[in-house]
Amino acid sequence: MATTFNDWSVSEAEFHPEKINHSETIFTIGNGYLGTRGAFEEHFPNENRSTFLHGVFDDVPVVFTELANASDWTEMEIFLNGERFSLENGKILAYERRLDLKTATLSRSVRWESPQGHISRLVFERFASLADIHLCGVRVSITAENYQGSIEIRSGLNGNADNLGFLHWNWVGQSAAKNSATLLCRTRSSAIDLCIGLTQTLTASDRTGRSFAWDVHNHPSVVSKIGIEKGETAVATKWVTLATSRDGKKALVQTQRRVHKLSALNWEEAYQAHCAAWENEWNYCDMVIEGDDEAQLAVRFNIFQLLIAAPRSDEHVNIGAKTLSGYGYRGHAFWDTEIFMLPFFTYTRPEIARNLLSYRWHNLPGARAKASANGFNGAQYPWESAATGEEVTPTWVPDPKDHTQLIRIWTGDIEIHISADVSFAIWQYWKASADDEFFAKRGAEVILDTARFWAARAEWVEELQRYEISDIIGPDEYHDHVDNNLYTNALARWNLQRALDTLPWLETHAPAELRRLKKALQIDAAELKKWQHVIDHLYLPYNEKTRLIEQFDGYFARKDVDLAAMEPRSESIQSIFGIEGAAATQVLKQPDVLMLMYLLPDLYDQATLEANYRYYTPRTDHTFGSSLGPSIQAIMACRVGDVTAYEHFMRAARADLFDVRNNAGDGIHGASAGGLWQAVVFGFAGLRYSAADQQWHTHPALPKNWKRVAFKMMIHGKELSFDIHQ
Amino acid sequence: MATTFNDWSVSEAEFHPEKINHSETIFTIGNGYLGTRGAFEEHFPNENRSTFLHGVFDDVPVVFTELANASDWTEMEIFLNGERFSLENGKILAYERRLDLKTATLSRSVRWESPQGHISRLVFERFASLADIHLCGVRVSITAENYQGSIEIRSGLNGNADNLGFLHWNWVGQSAAKNSATLLCRTRSSAIDLCIGLTQTLTASDRTGRSFAWDVHNHPSVVSKIGIEKGETAVATKWVTLATSRDGKKALVQTQRRVHKLSALNWEEAYQAHCAAWENEWNYCDMVIEGDDEAQLAVRFNIFQLLIAAPRSDEHVNIGAKTLSGYGYRGHAFWDTEIFMLPFFTYTRPEIARNLLSYRWHNLPGARAKASANGFNGAQYPWESAATGEEVTPTWVPDPKDHTQLIRIWTGDIEIHISADVSFAIWQYWKASADDEFFAKRGAEVILDTARFWAARAEWVEELQRYEISDIIGPDEYHDHVDNNLYTNALARWNLQRALDTLPWLETHAPAELRRLKKALQIDAAELKKWQHVIDHLYLPYNEKTRLIEQFDGYFARKDVDLAAMEPRSESIQSIFGIEGAAATQVLKQPDVLMLMYLLPDLYDQATLEANYRYYTPRTDHTFGSSLGPSIQAIMACRVGDVTAYEHFMRAARADLFDVRNNAGDGIHGASAGGLWQAVVFGFAGLRYSAADQQWHTHPALPKNWKRVAFKMMIHGKELSFDIHQ
Repeated sequence: MATTFNDWSVSEAEFHPEKINHSETIFTIGNGYLGTRGAFEEHFPNENRSTFLHGVFDDVPVVFTELANASDWTEMEIFLNGERFSLENGKILAYERRLDLKTATLSRSVRWESPQGHISRLVFERFASLADIHLCGVRVSITAENYQGSIEIRSGLNGNADNLGFLHWNWVGQSAAKNSATLLCRTRSSAIDLCIGLTQTLTASDRTGRSFAWDVHNHPSVVSKIGIEKGETAVATKWVTLATSRDGKKALVQTQRRVHKLSALNWEEAYQAHCAAWENEWNYCDMVIEGDDEAQLAVRFNIFQLLIAAPRSDEHVNIGAKTLSGYGYRGHAFWDTEIFMLPFFTYTRPEIARNLLSYRWHNLPGARAKASANGFNGAQYPWESAATGEEVTPTWVPDPKDHTQLIRIWTGDIEIHISADVSFAIWQYWKASADDEFFAKRGAEVILDTARFWAARAEWVEELQRYEISDIIGPDEYHDHVDNNLYTNALARWNLQRALDTLPWLETHAPAELRRLKKALQIDAAELKKWQHVIDHLYLPYNEKTRLIEQFDGYFARKDVDLAAMEPRSESIQSIFGIEGAAATQVLKQPDVLMLMYLLPDLYDQATLEANYRYYTPRTDHTFGSSLGPSIQAIMACRVGDVTAYEHFMRAARADLFDVRNNAGDGIHGASAGGLWQAVVFGFAGLRYSAADQQWHTHPALPKNWKRVAFKMMIHGKELSFDIHQ
Repeated sequence: MATTFNDWSVSEAEFHPEKINHSETIFTIGNGYLGTRGAFEEHFPNENRSTFLHGVFDDVPVVFTELANASDWTEMEIFLNGERFSLENGKILAYERRLDLKTATLSRSVRWESPQGHISRLVFERFASLADIHLCGVRVSITAENYQGSIEIRSGLNGNADNLGFLHWNWVGQSAAKNSATLLCRTRSSAIDLCIGLTQTLTASDRTGRSFAWDVHNHPSVVSKIGIEKGETAVATKWVTLATSRDGKKALVQTQRRVHKLSALNWEEAYQAHCAAWENEWNYCDMVIEGDDEAQLAVRFNIFQLLIAAPRSDEHVNIGAKTLSGYGYRGHAFWDTEIFMLPFFTYTRPEIARNLLSYRWHNLPGARAKASANGFNGAQYPWESAATGEEVTPTWVPDPKDHTQLIRIWTGDIEIHISADVSFAIWQYWKASADDEFFAKRGAEVILDTARFWAARAEWVEELQRYEISDIIGPDEYHDHVDNNLYTNALARWNLQRALDTLPWLETHAPAELRRLKKALQIDAAELKKWQHVIDHLYLPYNEKTRLIEQFDGYFARKDVDLAAMEPRSESIQSIFGIEGAAATQVLKQPDVLMLMYLLPDLYDQATLEANYRYYTPRTDHTFGSSLGPSIQAIMACRVGDVTAYEHFMRAARADLFDVRNNAGDGIHGASAGGLWQAVVFGFAGLRYSAADQQWHTHPALPKNWKRVAFKMMIHGKELSFDIHQ
């Protein structure tokens, strides 16, 4: 991918057809309302052309629900003197694609010789407006270098947009007249209406071309034609507006009306408004790294990915593990949001963090239904979450090695730490923002009801006089059906403690809310006593002699593998050993004990951290295990003074840009993107909150080639600037 | 459905939107190359618009492969003075749809008042030519009753035809100019190319309307417009030609060339050629029933279904369980073909039977691979078969009651009688046709290699000194994992016997083929000895005292349920009791012992037949068990003189026309259609072959309301006429 590291742009200097799906991911643009993969305007074989709108889920076999690929707004078919422009045919004389991160603008410049020898220069630009999230624009300038003739541009609204072959939309209605077209369609199961409309104009010098409509069923199109002289440039401008029934009652009608006004829109004006909105975002969120061009670009690229996926005006959606940039995990949200992506928003764009956390509060009914179905009180969040908070983890998926067989996926049943992760993120947001209103009205309820779940879920073992939590999966998914996973047990206890802290705070600061919650949740003294009892007696493993913490019961007895001796590898330990084979070893997908020590740094002393760091680091599959691991590993390396921190950091930095895991075509690794920001802030800059003086302090440990790191944090509504020089 | 019983047509006098999927199945037309469901030309919500081409399979999740719905050739959007014609809007003043079985023509007559009050009469006709299987025609005549104005007809080729939401096609290319359009597309996994083209003309009185093309990506369309006077009639004629890469190297190019010649085609001429081809079919295949209009129509309707699904020029395809008329079973072929549908073809259109049996011969490699994968010699046919003969039974399907759970489908693993069924059909065809060439070159190889499978599959039980066949599913699928199912054991033995008969015949009549086969199959004396040993010692249960045959080991010990006491029911016993619950009873989905006695009538004497008929009949789920059961039950009732024969017969006759099982929307029950023909011939007419005088004799047992039954049979290449009067 990007072979030169410009501060602010990712570029592709050659066209590689074999890598188009990876490029489509990298060149995704978006505005927090929608995300659109970087497929070419004019189609290419094996493309994964898609636009995902937050919250527009629809039913699908196997994975239950997925974001429905919506009618593409970028499509343009171009005919140059009657020849169809396509990178499949003719000759590519020059090519460059560039994503400008500062303005979220994707452009492409192509010099192309047609099969008949006509040479044209085509410059494409597209943006999804951040100033007006229902507006998208595409523009192409075409210069006829060695011929005169006709330029024809066809832009359609395709109602048959598919998700890797699966259709989610039914046709409802359409219209097309002169230079505009409108399409109304509805998701097949969830019955979400989409209205999308376009206008197109084509000009050359001071002439305007002729436009007319092709009102084909489910694919209304506008065709614009103009004649140009040799050396002249024609410019086609296409505006698209869209909204769904999720946007309110009037949104569809307003969109239909707006279509006819779009042709009056001035490109420069609309684009400047968009750029100004982006300037504002970067004012809050930019991170400067001097002395390391690759790291600088990677950090901005990953922040950009978080920003284009972030819902700014919708508190009923979350960010999927692959953001809005691909089919991986089908738009489902995991703990990836709360633990990996949210800190970035919490500390730079708290309004967005609040939206994302409100999504969890709105979905409490789903979490309560899940707990109840499993026989527990309280709220148990789904491992994979979509529109409603119902559990949507697939239970069975086809075995890639034998299509007649299936693999049982257990995470939806037993990877339960997510409920504590949600509480953790709420607490972290509250502490950073001092948003007492949110905490009193929404956050507290989640913390209390997840605590209630943990108290019910913990199992009293009479003979040992302690609580245990058995048969679960921790973050390290190489080992399933384990007992007493440190990460899960410790965060469950933490969740209960915060619930007990929450009640007196409410009593002092929001007594009305406390009354409401006590009535709604019917928490009584006996239950509070039980919570304290669980806190006091929940088993957390620890060997006082070695200071080692066993990740789960029996972990140390599993087979010890010399991972270093297996390098270099090109696949994960689970691929090499198989699911059962990997589980029989001590090799970790990610190190749960270190992860827990990252989240709760005060729970153990430095010597314990170091002992466990030394034990678990060589036993972790850093290269092909979890994509969530490297950035946290970088942070923990900083905390123990290990210089490999930079190596781990760069592994995360390259995850998508260099496709180091061979799956970036499925979409951006959102957690890795969020982790990268955390690695700079909490790792290299070493930011730590001191309870003693109630201040944030840096403990810099910059990589040796870094000259400077600078970023801002929003704490209690005030902006703090950090500027660290080596 | 059909409330009046015309001899030759099925008609619908009112439009019932809630039954459109059932109507689409009933009004399917086809020509043995393709089948097209009876969706309206102009679209209607919840339609299942589909055209299936024989052999055009493509990969799909869960069910592995399915016939790919191809671009629809019937689609026409009609605008009357600018108002879109749709039965959703305006008023339906008169409506009739009629399928003429004699000419395979579907017509619809609608008198419609538009929302603005314009009244039009529209008459639609469509046919898929039997004289020229690559040609289809649609014509609509529109009379403006109370207005003058414009008529506009839009006909497109939709490259995004989907299978219930799943897309199988990638765009390859297209063209559109004036009154014609062409689309090239390719199935996504199996890479079968389809070329489809259309031309359209619109006339009124002696004027011809203006036509032009809308060349929208993946949906090229032709639009025709004309102005008409009040009372005048406009006629739009649309011709479609199509072919796939399965039709040979030149087929696609020829189709592309042909498109431009289609507009010169004369409707009456092309239609007459089609009708003449159908007259020829009915000359061979018609069956006359006098005195019972409903039975007469039902028999013709079901014969029609077999004829439109029958491949006349392709020996690499089979007929799916739901023919080419719906999504049920995804186009997969079962024993339904060999045992239920094939006798009709064998005895009336042996060329078609030969094609269908050749499909099995071509797929011997798949059957051998399946046997080998299971550790056996020989050929084991797949329970569900598609393009290659590979097993394509789904292994797991979603549980309709809980979408997170799956149900294991065992038929692909252990419903093994299919291999003997194929041999049975080959032998039956050979005996009826005297097609020695087919038998020597193809049929014999199947019989020998399936025999070899049975000899390997039978298990020697030392302590009982006999062979058994354990852990299988017989035709009665309410009971799985059973041992010594009579149907399977008896047909396996029969298969081995016929293999031993085949070798000396080959020696006498086709010694070169025998040498070829002996070399290819490497059959030696020891193996032949083994075959005889299995024949002599394969266990067939029989109680000499009661004459009862236990369907499988332990069947008599299962719970006896008083089925009569549960009437009337509206669902199957398996639905009521559950899979495990039904298996614990003696209730049968269909009676295997009677089925076996139908196929091998000389194996048991009349008293044994009667004893078993009395035992099994009241224990069979005739109404909601297998749709394969009723016609065979009617035959066996005739053989024991039971007057309920007619009731069973009519249950089969109504299966699709009246949707008695509530699933006709998924497609025609092909086996029931074939069984119906057998029930008349081998049941009511009582046709039996006498080995003594080597003649066919009737043993009539006509229902009391029937005055006459007449049909023809093709025996040894000669036509025999049967005409039975009560």
